[in-house]
Amino acid sequence: MKPVKIGICGLGTVGGGTFRVLEDNAELLAARAGAQLELIHIGARRDNPDCPVGDVRLSRDIFAVARDPEVDILVELIGGTTVAKELVEEAIRNGKHVVTANKALIAEFGNVLFAMAEQHNVAIRYEAAVAGGIPIIKALREGLAGNRIDWLAGIINGTGNFILSEMREKGRDFADVLAEAQALGYAEADPAFDVEGTDAAHKLVILAAIAFGTPLQFSDVYAEGITRLTPQDVSYAEELGYRIKHLGIAKQSAQGVELRVHPTLIPEQQLLANVNGVKNAVVVEGSAVGSTLYYGAGAGAEPTASAVVADIIDLARDLAVGQSPQLPALGVASAAIRKLPVIPMSEVVSPWYLRMEADDKPGVMSQVTSLFSAQGISIEALIQKAPSPGETRVPVIVLTNEAAQGCLDAAVKAIEALDSIVGKIMCIRVETLGS
Amino acid sequence: MKPVKIGICGLGTVGGGTFRVLEDNAELLAARAGAQLELIHIGARRDNPDCPVGDVRLSRDIFAVARDPEVDILVELIGGTTVAKELVEEAIRNGKHVVTANKALIAEFGNVLFAMAEQHNVAIRYEAAVAGGIPIIKALREGLAGNRIDWLAGIINGTGNFILSEMREKGRDFADVLAEAQALGYAEADPAFDVEGTDAAHKLVILAAIAFGTPLQFSDVYAEGITRLTPQDVSYAEELGYRIKHLGIAKQSAQGVELRVHPTLIPEQQLLANVNGVKNAVVVEGSAVGSTLYYGAGAGAEPTASAVVADIIDLARDLAVGQSPQLPALGVASAAIRKLPVIPMSEVVSPWYLRMEADDKPGVMSQVTSLFSAQGISIEALIQKAPSPGETRVPVIVLTNEAAQGCLDAAVKAIEALDSIVGKIMCIRVETLGS
Repeated sequence: MKPVKIGICGLGTVGGGTFRVLEDNAELLAARAGAQLELIHIGARRDNPDCPVGDVRLSRDIFAVARDPEVDILVELIGGTTVAKELVEEAIRNGKHVVTANKALIAEFGNVLFAMAEQHNVAIRYEAAVAGGIPIIKALREGLAGNRIDWLAGIINGTGNFILSEMREKGRDFADVLAEAQALGYAEADPAFDVEGTDAAHKLVILAAIAFGTPLQFSDVYAEGITRLTPQDVSYAEELGYRIKHLGIAKQSAQGVELRVHPTLIPEQQLLANVNGVKNAVVVEGSAVGSTLYYGAGAGAEPTASAVVADIIDLARDLAVGQSPQLPALGVASAAIRKLPVIPMSEVVSPWYLRMEADDKPGVMSQVTSLFSAQGISIEALIQKAPSPGETRVPVIVLTNEAAQGCLDAAVKAIEALDSIVGKIMCIRVETLGS
Repeated sequence: MKPVKIGICGLGTVGGGTFRVLEDNAELLAARAGAQLELIHIGARRDNPDCPVGDVRLSRDIFAVARDPEVDILVELIGGTTVAKELVEEAIRNGKHVVTANKALIAEFGNVLFAMAEQHNVAIRYEAAVAGGIPIIKALREGLAGNRIDWLAGIINGTGNFILSEMREKGRDFADVLAEAQALGYAEADPAFDVEGTDAAHKLVILAAIAFGTPLQFSDVYAEGITRLTPQDVSYAEELGYRIKHLGIAKQSAQGVELRVHPTLIPEQQLLANVNGVKNAVVVEGSAVGSTLYYGAGAGAEPTASAVVADIIDLARDLAVGQSPQLPALGVASAAIRKLPVIPMSEVVSPWYLRMEADDKPGVMSQVTSLFSAQGISIEALIQKAPSPGETRVPVIVLTNEAAQGCLDAAVKAIEALDSIVGKIMCIRVETLGS
């Protein structure tokens, strides 16, 4: 067995974690990989005081790692999609296998990078790009390979889940919890990436491509954030036996695929409803296996490093004996990848939760229900709350049966036009997740 | 790419499921494996009316499949440990790779079979042997390969979990629910295998060997069943904020490994506590990733077939291009496998739940607590219930802090000898699972 030689680009949070896991568990990793994993070259613009690189070669020009003839596997941990993309391309051109934790890079440029890697007969692995340390890519790509995947749904942004958990457990406002999440370092100074759903959309499109054998279609993902949610919605959902989670959902049907990220009411007895704090979890529905769930830390230096190192070991097993890793980037032979139409959101069907403010007077509910009925939408539950003291308006909560968004929007527009309804109606999708 | 040729031995429940998955998803599986998966030979003592074998060769002598020069992968689905062992050995001698769902075979004879397979340069895969369709073997062996595994704990017998779930939800007796489970086909006519913990012990020892890089040590597993549990225990546990689950637990420490299957109180907010019915779930604590959980169907024809087919696809990717699969049977190079001492149960430490019947008179509790104290055991909670009308005895529930079983046993023996304590004391371990 020859040693397998690793180059790491980026020595920040995840790079530092990966460095430490490779150092701390060196003997164990060699036993599992069947070969020594030798970190021989680090590319980093600045030192990381937690990572004493010793006599490992250190380059300030990260491209030197991609061109190092000794390096077998280049580990891209610099993030972003400009320099990172050039770096990965340079590594591929130089015959390096690539391991990356970069969800944006894979989601937005995976198609071209995977094609280029195949041409050069090298592998790209990206377990750490989705749900941190949870081996969900491996589960979907290999563990469930015997199944047609019908749908998957996941809590794949820990910051958003932390905020929703705090809102529910303590009745706090969105803005208040967000400020705390920023103070705790969970959320970026600009939190839009987390709370508007972009980060979840990146991860969702990667999971969907593996699940359905499609190209990565990031620009087709519908992403709706959690910024509009109020403590009232969280609390009413709970009264009705639901929890609100920010889910990434991908479904396959005869019409095509649904790719969507949005707040969602799910039944409280679902395991997914009980995933709290910054944790991630993904439910996958397979044709043979039924429902499986994967849960764990979705971010953080060491959990992400766990996934990065797992990818390195997988590659190293083959490289140590001079074999070529055979697993295709999406788990499907590239010739078999088929673009499927993404179903427009107006045609996507689900039950709905709606909350509106109505004048507390006779006849209003009858007007509202007839406008739903006009769109062919049936009502599962309608709760008119008592008015607060001195108020003449009451909150009205409606749970509908399944309705396409197009029909729902039309009904909502008509209801909002009623004199007795004040302001906008809050609309949140419901998913039963097979329960 | 050359087609990969499959032989299946056994066409019962799991064999039939595997046959159907291979047929139904043929095109998808070929895309994922990068080669056609051709079922060319079936060994079965009798036909399965749900499996029209068409022009696939059918042998009543299953050993004919192991000797078929065309077969690349032999799939052993006959169960048991006598003929199955001979069959797998014959397949290995004939250079076949082996996929099996047989937990007893791997748990009891894995060490010799893995060594023999390595000699003959073939692979043995057994994802379906633990937790049915949940890809837990793959997660532990590959997905978490970057971690030192500290412990794992799982609900790995669906029948037992169904019984405990029903006892909790409906206050039913063990015997009553067991009879229903037998009627539903969840439990065998002789249910000892499920409810006494043997089945869970088989699975636990497989998970532990992968997690810790040890040989399979089935005879060293402590197995305690759920037959003694009463609805009262289930209900008192709930009052205290716990659920009772039948867990397989493996822990690694400086002293060695713990391998144990027993009823366990776990905190109700743990995800594992909310796994109900026949489902399985396993929590794994890794040094880098922290806690991850894997959930799904632990049995059944199609879920088990899902795992079998995943193993076939993994092997097929390499075989299709004439490469040798490099993953060792336990995920660790055989030269690196180390036998670790199994810690005797008397030294295994945990908090405890105890229930006893005491005379309802002054001084009894003081006697009881002083006997715990004499063994160095401190008490976390002590609840004396009110006597039932007309009763002079009361149930007393005790939660202790951490105590080795040896000390606990000594205290229990002394307490049972008190005149004021009636009958035996019920003792159940508590695990916080890191919460």
